[in-house]
Amino acid sequence: MQLVCLDLEGVLLPEIWIAVARKTGLKELERTTRDEPDYDKLMRYRLDILDREGIGIGEIREVIGTLDPLPGAVEFAEWLKSCVPLIVLSDTFSQFAEPLMAKLGYPALFCHQLILGASGTIDDYKLRLDDQKKKSVNAFQNLNFEVIAAGDSYNDLTMLQQADQGILFRPPEKMKSEYPDFPVAEDHASLRENIEKLLR
Amino acid sequence: MQLVCLDLEGVLLPEIWIAVARKTGLKELERTTRDEPDYDKLMRYRLDILDREGIGIGEIREVIGTLDPLPGAVEFAEWLKSCVPLIVLSDTFSQFAEPLMAKLGYPALFCHQLILGASGTIDDYKLRLDDQKKKSVNAFQNLNFEVIAAGDSYNDLTMLQQADQGILFRPPEKMKSEYPDFPVAEDHASLRENIEKLLR
Repeated sequence: MQLVCLDLEGVLLPEIWIAVARKTGLKELERTTRDEPDYDKLMRYRLDILDREGIGIGEIREVIGTLDPLPGAVEFAEWLKSCVPLIVLSDTFSQFAEPLMAKLGYPALFCHQLILGASGTIDDYKLRLDDQKKKSVNAFQNLNFEVIAAGDSYNDLTMLQQADQGILFRPPEKMKSEYPDFPVAEDHASLRENIEKLLR
Repeated sequence: MQLVCLDLEGVLLPEIWIAVARKTGLKELERTTRDEPDYDKLMRYRLDILDREGIGIGEIREVIGTLDPLPGAVEFAEWLKSCVPLIVLSDTFSQFAEPLMAKLGYPALFCHQLILGASGTIDDYKLRLDDQKKKSVNAFQNLNFEVIAAGDSYNDLTMLQQADQGILFRPPEKMKSEYPDFPVAEDHASLRENIEKLLR
């Protein structure tokens, strides 16, 4: 039996931090895992900016509330869920994802958590598990699933490498040339075709 | 972070084999995991009856197409998915479950597969994994999830025992007295209350 693991931001949803950067005018927050592969370094950088600017969870959830899934993502997720078990593996935080997961019909999401202060400050973050994407894929394989995975950036790399079949979705040019063995999908129709070919 | 594992038949859906028994008039097919804890013995018994009576996958899917989720199950599953990752762990077969999973909004389902003959006969079944319910719960725990599980019958027992919190849903009287330590929910409202108490 088969199972599909999908990254969330960049595949089904827009990049939440980039949306926050645009809304707040803080260009420094446009840095993502596409630019900075070291996730802890990236998160410390983000939390420092929020702290400095006095931006809390309330302001961020307000921005997230205005976002929608990427065009085509709702239909794509709906189709995929009807074919195979779908698990979304994301380095986002449950407090960020929630309003947008509703719009995707709540596929199962494995992610992390923010540690919030009483007044709504984002004090810290807690990774549920280090390298959770790769470890989750491996756990599903140990449960006798053949795993197909798709993601768009460096934090998906170990997941794609661990999976039986990895697919890059709209990756940065640099990543495409560094990892030429992965098939590349530039839109949801092409991602669906790539997955359909692999489904039995 | 928390994750919920639910049994399918008896918790979200009616017992498919009992529905088939009623529709075909074959009372022998009313035997379920509630009556026979040895799953392989039960499946061999069922497949022998289908073979003897000339009932194939077409007839069974026709029966399944007439079924609906248990009253309250759609709303319950919708609520649950909005709170935590939901994984349905079932000893059913993907070919049986599919038309009914649509009515539940396709939560991620870990189950087994039937081996079908060219003419639609059900020739055999293939367990994806022996004792998959328990092993899946354990895999989620190793991914740093605290697991809440609910099920209604003997094939859920190892899952409930492995979980951080196990809940019996409408269990047979015998099971209730044999395992008095599990909280018991007799309807979806009570199951929701039991789970709500455990969610953080």
